[in-house]
Amino acid sequence: MKPIGPIPMAFADQHGELTIGGLSVSELASSAGQTPYYAYDLDLISAQVERFRKAIPGEVHLHYAVKANPHPAVIQHLMELTDGLDMASGGELERVRDCGADMAHVSFAGPGKRDPELELAISLGATLNLESENEAKRALAAGQRLGITPRLAVRVNPDFELKGSGMSMGGGAKPFGVDQDRVPALVKDIISQGADWRGFHIYSGSQSLDVDAIANSQEASIALAAELAQAIGEPPKTVNLGGGFGIPYTANDTPLDVESLGKRLETALSGRKPILADTQFMIELGRWLVGEAGVYVAQILDRKLSKDELFLVTDGGMHHHLAASGNFGMVMKRNYPVAIASQMGAEHTESATIVGPLCTPLDRLAADIGVPQAEIGDYVAVFASGAYGLSASPINFLSHPHAAEIVVKGGKVTI
Amino acid sequence: MKPIGPIPMAFADQHGELTIGGLSVSELASSAGQTPYYAYDLDLISAQVERFRKAIPGEVHLHYAVKANPHPAVIQHLMELTDGLDMASGGELERVRDCGADMAHVSFAGPGKRDPELELAISLGATLNLESENEAKRALAAGQRLGITPRLAVRVNPDFELKGSGMSMGGGAKPFGVDQDRVPALVKDIISQGADWRGFHIYSGSQSLDVDAIANSQEASIALAAELAQAIGEPPKTVNLGGGFGIPYTANDTPLDVESLGKRLETALSGRKPILADTQFMIELGRWLVGEAGVYVAQILDRKLSKDELFLVTDGGMHHHLAASGNFGMVMKRNYPVAIASQMGAEHTESATIVGPLCTPLDRLAADIGVPQAEIGDYVAVFASGAYGLSASPINFLSHPHAAEIVVKGGKVTI
Repeated sequence: MKPIGPIPMAFADQHGELTIGGLSVSELASSAGQTPYYAYDLDLISAQVERFRKAIPGEVHLHYAVKANPHPAVIQHLMELTDGLDMASGGELERVRDCGADMAHVSFAGPGKRDPELELAISLGATLNLESENEAKRALAAGQRLGITPRLAVRVNPDFELKGSGMSMGGGAKPFGVDQDRVPALVKDIISQGADWRGFHIYSGSQSLDVDAIANSQEASIALAAELAQAIGEPPKTVNLGGGFGIPYTANDTPLDVESLGKRLETALSGRKPILADTQFMIELGRWLVGEAGVYVAQILDRKLSKDELFLVTDGGMHHHLAASGNFGMVMKRNYPVAIASQMGAEHTESATIVGPLCTPLDRLAADIGVPQAEIGDYVAVFASGAYGLSASPINFLSHPHAAEIVVKGGKVTI
Repeated sequence: MKPIGPIPMAFADQHGELTIGGLSVSELASSAGQTPYYAYDLDLISAQVERFRKAIPGEVHLHYAVKANPHPAVIQHLMELTDGLDMASGGELERVRDCGADMAHVSFAGPGKRDPELELAISLGATLNLESENEAKRALAAGQRLGITPRLAVRVNPDFELKGSGMSMGGGAKPFGVDQDRVPALVKDIISQGADWRGFHIYSGSQSLDVDAIANSQEASIALAAELAQAIGEPPKTVNLGGGFGIPYTANDTPLDVESLGKRLETALSGRKPILADTQFMIELGRWLVGEAGVYVAQILDRKLSKDELFLVTDGGMHHHLAASGNFGMVMKRNYPVAIASQMGAEHTESATIVGPLCTPLDRLAADIGVPQAEIGDYVAVFASGAYGLSASPINFLSHPHAAEIVVKGGKVTI
């Protein structure tokens, strides 16, 4: 039998039928009109924001990285609770514009921005995080075409990386940002060309559970921002320290100690160089805000034995949840937190592999895990599914029905 | 520098701008109205069918596994050239119904079929490949509800596997099919309940380039079908020998020698047991028919250096082509066949990593490959993209524009 990841606290100690935001998975299935569905609990997202606010120094702004979950209700909710939104495409820009976001607190990063995307960002007044000298030229030209002063920050490829992170995005040759030694010249150039230079975006990695690693990276980012500002001779208005806050997905993952991280950050900020005295710092989080607030729910279609191994076949799978199937950048396939949602807390009496309906061995939601005796019609929940879930999955693969998405708040389904 | 996969013959020896079906990639970009796009050359698909017909004994039917590429024009084309179509979902059934397929030669396999899918298949007259005893019960009940005799075959989970295949689908505990020792009882039961028993579906693996491995598996399947038929006491009308024919994707992959395979199959069929004398055999191919006929084309948005490494950033990436990014079941990330399509045959003067526009290190189309000097606006082609390309990719990931799909035939864009 293989271990599963830790079930998030809000769901861990339930008995009987799993509830999400106070509603049972079968009630939610009725609301969704189908299984499989994703349910997002906005109250859990609020609680994460609150936890951030308590733990992290008040002067640090919190931004939501929309790419983690671009559902409009999630964007709307986090728009109200956070200090800004960070985009990864023109499509996301259009979404937050349609949600009525304040563009003065919206930024856009991404290594391959097309001209129409640059123009959209500039005309909306969003800040572009420049990824290269070429992109700077194109952004300045777009500003001239539009007759609008572009708001430009520079994404820095730092010499350090976020150690032990799920995905390293600094510390070597990278497609992201501008190598730190070339940043001062670029910033001087964009200032001299009349752009509104906003500051730096320093993103060194994501999905870390290690306080030390994130704190070291934040400290290095603050020091680097000061060094760059001194070389430029002008303070940055803003410094985006990136994100990197991870959530537990698999066995042995433990939650990030955000409170300790906050203390380390407080010390680092209070000791910062004078040139950064008036700089607005921000942290950009996606996964940590929404990941544990989402649950993917499918229903068992078949219970079958093959060579004495038990397979539970569900109506959901990798086409809706690529990450849980272990095909989203994972080197090792490890089990997500998964449970038989209609029998929470029941004793595990057998072991099973939970698979989806696709004709491929890749379509596996959990391998060889302990379960109570589960039958056709039972629900299966995959936790930690609120970030990089449906939007990161090959939804058309094998032309199965799409998953529904429902949003719960205050004990009610709002969408 | 790392090697790339072999560029398919139809495209390998071009100089100047790559053409697909006689049209240049820039002409095709105009037709598509954008980059990135997938182009599928129907004439190359026809040539593969012809190669199959010449190599494989004439008595063996060729079926197209629609899941490899469910584009309606591809389905329509292969519907006319092959002897039948194999489905993996109700959605695919609807597609081929809308294409006007002859349902007497359509089958449907998949470990998690929902009741509406069973009913759709039965009411259309398609053959259901049963995956379990439970599913048999549900299919028989659905037939009774509809007042239609269901056409049922049994998918067999054989004791052997297709050795060295990209994905093994037999030879152990599997979610697919019914373990071979339980098949006779199941078949006797469905016959006794008045179903139209069609035969067996024996699918032991996919994406193999090894003649011996596929031939052994076909021989074992024919022997197994005879053994099962004898135990049942009735010959199967059809035996689907599965597929397994692979195409080269990465360096050191060599094309499958279909001609040798055909000779082995001829010998095996001529020596088959008398109980299979009138059985119709079929081979079910997806990837081998359409894989090399498709090319994914993107355009370079940025050329940037980081720590002396060159990155070419394109407008296309893993959101359109998950497999090329190495995140589709690959244990090792190896380069697909990739080329600068606007400079085919030009001398390679530098090495580059080709990435997409997404803010993730996973978004990589080729790592550290030799290229001619490529600039912004140059086209990048990813070959071997006709199967499990767009339909197997997370198209909404980061809300970038979707890829176009165009179809070329007889030197013209037909769609």
